[in-house]
Amino acid sequence: MKELSSVKVAIVGASGYSGEELVRLLLGHPHADLVAVTSRQYAGRTVAEIFPRFASHPKARELKFSEPNATDLAKQAQIVFLALPHGVATEYAVPLNEQGCRVIDLSADFRLRSASVYQDFYAHEHPAPELLTKAIYGLPEVYREQIKNALLIASPGCYPTSILLPVIPLLHAGIIKSEGIIADSMSGVSGAGRKADLAYLFCECNESVRPYGVPKHRHLSEIEQELSIAADREVTIQFTPHLIPVNRGILTTLYLAPAKHFQAGAEMTALAETISRCYSNVYANEPFVRVLEGGALPDTKNVVGTNVIEIAWRLDPRTGRLIVMSAEDNVVKGASGQAVQSMNIACGFPETAGLI
Amino acid sequence: MKELSSVKVAIVGASGYSGEELVRLLLGHPHADLVAVTSRQYAGRTVAEIFPRFASHPKARELKFSEPNATDLAKQAQIVFLALPHGVATEYAVPLNEQGCRVIDLSADFRLRSASVYQDFYAHEHPAPELLTKAIYGLPEVYREQIKNALLIASPGCYPTSILLPVIPLLHAGIIKSEGIIADSMSGVSGAGRKADLAYLFCECNESVRPYGVPKHRHLSEIEQELSIAADREVTIQFTPHLIPVNRGILTTLYLAPAKHFQAGAEMTALAETISRCYSNVYANEPFVRVLEGGALPDTKNVVGTNVIEIAWRLDPRTGRLIVMSAEDNVVKGASGQAVQSMNIACGFPETAGLI
Amino acid sequence: MKELSSVKVAIVGASGYSGEELVRLLLGHPHADLVAVTSRQYAGRTVAEIFPRFASHPKARELKFSEPNATDLAKQAQIVFLALPHGVATEYAVPLNEQGCRVIDLSADFRLRSASVYQDFYAHEHPAPELLTKAIYGLPEVYREQIKNALLIASPGCYPTSILLPVIPLLHAGIIKSEGIIADSMSGVSGAGRKADLAYLFCECNESVRPYGVPKHRHLSEIEQELSIAADREVTIQFTPHLIPVNRGILTTLYLAPAKHFQAGAEMTALAETISRCYSNVYANEPFVRVLEGGALPDTKNVVGTNVIEIAWRLDPRTGRLIVMSAEDNVVKGASGQAVQSMNIACGFPETAGLI
Amino acid sequence: MKELSSVKVAIVGASGYSGEELVRLLLGHPHADLVAVTSRQYAGRTVAEIFPRFASHPKARELKFSEPNATDLAKQAQIVFLALPHGVATEYAVPLNEQGCRVIDLSADFRLRSASVYQDFYAHEHPAPELLTKAIYGLPEVYREQIKNALLIASPGCYPTSILLPVIPLLHAGIIKSEGIIADSMSGVSGAGRKADLAYLFCECNESVRPYGVPKHRHLSEIEQELSIAADREVTIQFTPHLIPVNRGILTTLYLAPAKHFQAGAEMTALAETISRCYSNVYANEPFVRVLEGGALPDTKNVVGTNVIEIAWRLDPRTGRLIVMSAEDNVVKGASGQAVQSMNIACGFPETAGLI
Repeated sequence: MKELSSVKVAIVGASGYSGEELVRLLLGHPHADLVAVTSRQYAGRTVAEIFPRFASHPKARELKFSEPNATDLAKQAQIVFLALPHGVATEYAVPLNEQGCRVIDLSADFRLRSASVYQDFYAHEHPAPELLTKAIYGLPEVYREQIKNALLIASPGCYPTSILLPVIPLLHAGIIKSEGIIADSMSGVSGAGRKADLAYLFCECNESVRPYGVPKHRHLSEIEQELSIAADREVTIQFTPHLIPVNRGILTTLYLAPAKHFQAGAEMTALAETISRCYSNVYANEPFVRVLEGGALPDTKNVVGTNVIEIAWRLDPRTGRLIVMSAEDNVVKGASGQAVQSMNIACGFPETAGLI
Repeated sequence: MKELSSVKVAIVGASGYSGEELVRLLLGHPHADLVAVTSRQYAGRTVAEIFPRFASHPKARELKFSEPNATDLAKQAQIVFLALPHGVATEYAVPLNEQGCRVIDLSADFRLRSASVYQDFYAHEHPAPELLTKAIYGLPEVYREQIKNALLIASPGCYPTSILLPVIPLLHAGIIKSEGIIADSMSGVSGAGRKADLAYLFCECNESVRPYGVPKHRHLSEIEQELSIAADREVTIQFTPHLIPVNRGILTTLYLAPAKHFQAGAEMTALAETISRCYSNVYANEPFVRVLEGGALPDTKNVVGTNVIEIAWRLDPRTGRLIVMSAEDNVVKGASGQAVQSMNIACGFPETAGLI
Repeated sequence: MKELSSVKVAIVGASGYSGEELVRLLLGHPHADLVAVTSRQYAGRTVAEIFPRFASHPKARELKFSEPNATDLAKQAQIVFLALPHGVATEYAVPLNEQGCRVIDLSADFRLRSASVYQDFYAHEHPAPELLTKAIYGLPEVYREQIKNALLIASPGCYPTSILLPVIPLLHAGIIKSEGIIADSMSGVSGAGRKADLAYLFCECNESVRPYGVPKHRHLSEIEQELSIAADREVTIQFTPHLIPVNRGILTTLYLAPAKHFQAGAEMTALAETISRCYSNVYANEPFVRVLEGGALPDTKNVVGTNVIEIAWRLDPRTGRLIVMSAEDNVVKGASGQAVQSMNIACGFPETAGLI
Repeated sequence: MKELSSVKVAIVGASGYSGEELVRLLLGHPHADLVAVTSRQYAGRTVAEIFPRFASHPKARELKFSEPNATDLAKQAQIVFLALPHGVATEYAVPLNEQGCRVIDLSADFRLRSASVYQDFYAHEHPAPELLTKAIYGLPEVYREQIKNALLIASPGCYPTSILLPVIPLLHAGIIKSEGIIADSMSGVSGAGRKADLAYLFCECNESVRPYGVPKHRHLSEIEQELSIAADREVTIQFTPHLIPVNRGILTTLYLAPAKHFQAGAEMTALAETISRCYSNVYANEPFVRVLEGGALPDTKNVVGTNVIEIAWRLDPRTGRLIVMSAEDNVVKGASGQAVQSMNIACGFPETAGLI
């Protein structure tokens, strides 16, 4: 593998959970050389001090957090990951792109194609609407070709990934209706980020389950954008996120209406074959999508720590619905792993490099 | 309160989680005298030995588990709770009723009115179909009058309670359609019972979320029976249970279609008022139903250990749906607390006795 | 019980975990009337809004948090509980006492008899050293008589309670040496309080165990003070607290040296009888101390939510040591329950009122 | 690295937690080829079916569990790992060794040098006492040279590893006394194995902390054996294990007496330097031992999933004791990772191969 040259990479905002996971993945990546990590809060301290779990890695003991500075980063790195709260990516992405760096942004800032949808869901004007047309939505299973040459990759959100990968193939193939889609999701607490907030204290989350962001969660905007593209018509969905007491993992259960009514028996068998073939055509060779067979159902514990999304489905002859369930690690396939997957594609590395 | 005479009560199958919770509630009940608890496994040992958490209660140190024997129980107790796995309640309920005991059964054995539905969902013939017409479904908010004189009370399941209490008033008032109802539920692990099964080991449940029983969970039978009665027409629903790593608690999110289409603005305001009035009419004086106001959403941690069900709802003008969410303790309002509530009604005690 | 008149009580600093538990206990107390709760942060909002779990209690829906003001509180209440961070109790305790209120303080501010020990462990001068001689250490099993007439009760810390109750009787009876005592404790996260701090986020505590405050935790000061009184000589102990991922509960394992060397056989049997008799003499009639028998060992899940401390012990003939283990709920027996127990004693109520 | 030839390996008893972790490590090992896994229960099913988390690995989808048979295994594999309950390893180890296979046993069967100590702690006669003298205790940091040519490696227990690595260097250097050592340990639930037992159900472990095996846990036998060798005199220690609600991780806190009394000031500084130098001499180049510096204390979350043990220490001038704390993953450094580390040494692979 060593004939592949190595790429120099940096992470802006490396102190949150996504940033930490990027550090983990990039320290172990065979073709990436992590040259800079920034954090205002931790500037001057080594990665090993702040993240003791990496302390056995020599580079973690040497590399120090620095104050974020686009000009400096552009001199050091060829690829820069932005792991910042939404709303501030523009101030790094623009100068980094101008100075020739490729940028992979993990925030929501460049995921939407429409500045007005952004404003509707994020409640402020988009600071750089011209970038929205340049950015590529970094869902490799859908946009692999575009990612190859992208200068600015907008890595998808955790909930969107758990919904888009199971639904897009079915919509695209016309197997399900584009109306009436419902997505019910449960997320681990890392999804809320590493921020000092009473709501995410151990005692407030442990032995608790609760819905939130009902009925208009911000992630709806990118979910509906991508489903609309797949369906080639406007799609509006219902989405309810819930917070559950696990560190990591998203389990999404989707309620879908097959395009044609079916009954138990031959109709149901035929539809099941169609669905099975559809997923197989699209995902059989995808290294990070695992469509379950037999009686198996997704379980977050089977994917936590990996870049894999598990998908299973059932037809219900009683209701005429198709139930699709997915499980992923919200910090890996739902964030940092997927971003590294995009980097691999953008750099011509094996897509699974550093991820298996 | 002491003018109320006390009733002698017994529990058959007191070694599981529902049985243990019944022990807790009845030891502390002002009008109940717990005279017998049975368990084949623990016969001869005191309640305090098996459940050390009750050891400070004098009766727990004296009362010993006995082998279950209907004739003996009938001599000792006026009310007998059955907390057994499904399928075996008949052999106790019949002789106990014949000998004049009132029976409150926590299993699924007498919840269905139709023996053929029972067979469809439980995969064996019902052993005493004649009892199905006699038994009263012990959901006090719906069947309070019938419970007063019932000889055989079939206490509802945990999932059904979390679905029926939010949905029945809306169906009954014609506010929602009876078609297309979806219930997505998350349950704590106590719902699986205290049984030595690899699937419920700590390491198999902790840091895991998973659906199960998709798409035809047994509880659907009683849910659909009661919703059909409320709607006065046959109702078929979609129901997906998930297992989450908490000891106790069920959170249910319901997707409902208002009977009349609405748009944001005056229509939505009017519908919201209708819903609000409906719940208020039905539940304002119910001691164990808490309809949340303002921005609050249900959270299992607010109801665990209590007999309360929390309910909140939201209209979504984007999709035209009504989202209703509920939270309960699956072992209290979803099982033993509700059974004690029925006992209070059946005995003419204050309905909240021993439950607040 | 109604011949006992009711006492008016207030809580200053009711928004933390100890304050919330006081609210729970006092709302349900048969002889207490909760007339005021203060919180700068939540002033003007009802108890039910801030603590939805109490929303079914009518008073919780009426009573509003107010800004803390000693003069106002003194007019409303006869007993005032202070549930504040350490260092600020004096500014309430002094005026409240002067205006005739009895004060039960849950902080460390009045637990030490020596202002210089306070300064050594808390790193600032004590603001009212004269109060240190007036305050009574509110450990009912040891200071019941003094509590009866106390104006200022310093309720013990959570770790100290878990250590003092098992050790004091043994030291007092001369059964163990006063040298070489080691206490190894594990505490749930509520012990850290409800404060927005990264260290206590769900993801930082879940799937983690860690020691902290090694080797000189502040609670050592009151532990050693009370052990020294029991032993009638200066006692220095080793104490290591650990943080574990449970909401509530402290498990303490104590390593003690019997005063006389023993060997397996008759010597060990005799010593075991001495220890058994000692605990029985002291604790047989204590409603909240449960000395375990047979093979049982303490488990926090048996005491969480109760005011009980479980104690078990083992002699180890291999090492000549006595191992004593205790389990308590850090927020109940370790804080608010014990404070209510003191209130019951101080007011002449049954000691278990509102606590069982 | 590919110039290193690959070794064929098998796992007997691959269905437990240690077995599963061996599967994970060996599937990803650059120089190991996993050719057989056995399990009576799962014979005929693929690794991917039983452990869905490995399903993305091609070999996991092909390799099937087989019935264990020493003769067959000897034909297929050069190294065989035994991950069986204690007491049954002999029946595999003897024929495998005879047929030229090297055996790495994860049970307690060959860890003790004395058959009578084995009988004392395990309550039955050792079935092959002659093997006890041949087996090498597989603690690489202590027995690296002997492991190189060992035919039978007895991989250490999880608790022993967490105690021996911190204590042996101090004992060996004469820095601490060999008397009075106390080890207080907290372990995650995976330590109890994957077995259907009520005590390890989610609801019995979650929100619970409890000691067990007090005062004579079986692991004491190997701990004392190895400490006695290091001290060159018989060592008896106190050891208390506790069960805490995490999947993985052991945190051990050790109470040690320095050989020479010290006081705060110059004596303490000198002793601290001695300890620091001791650990540095022994562990500075060990890839899997991380002695913490500055204010850091061990935390299981920093080592879970890795083969690293974290160690920190503090001198307490108040008590004259040395407190040493360690954290490890009980299933990795405490079991399967350490076994693979031994395999690497035995086969001449880089010691960190497949472990970083």
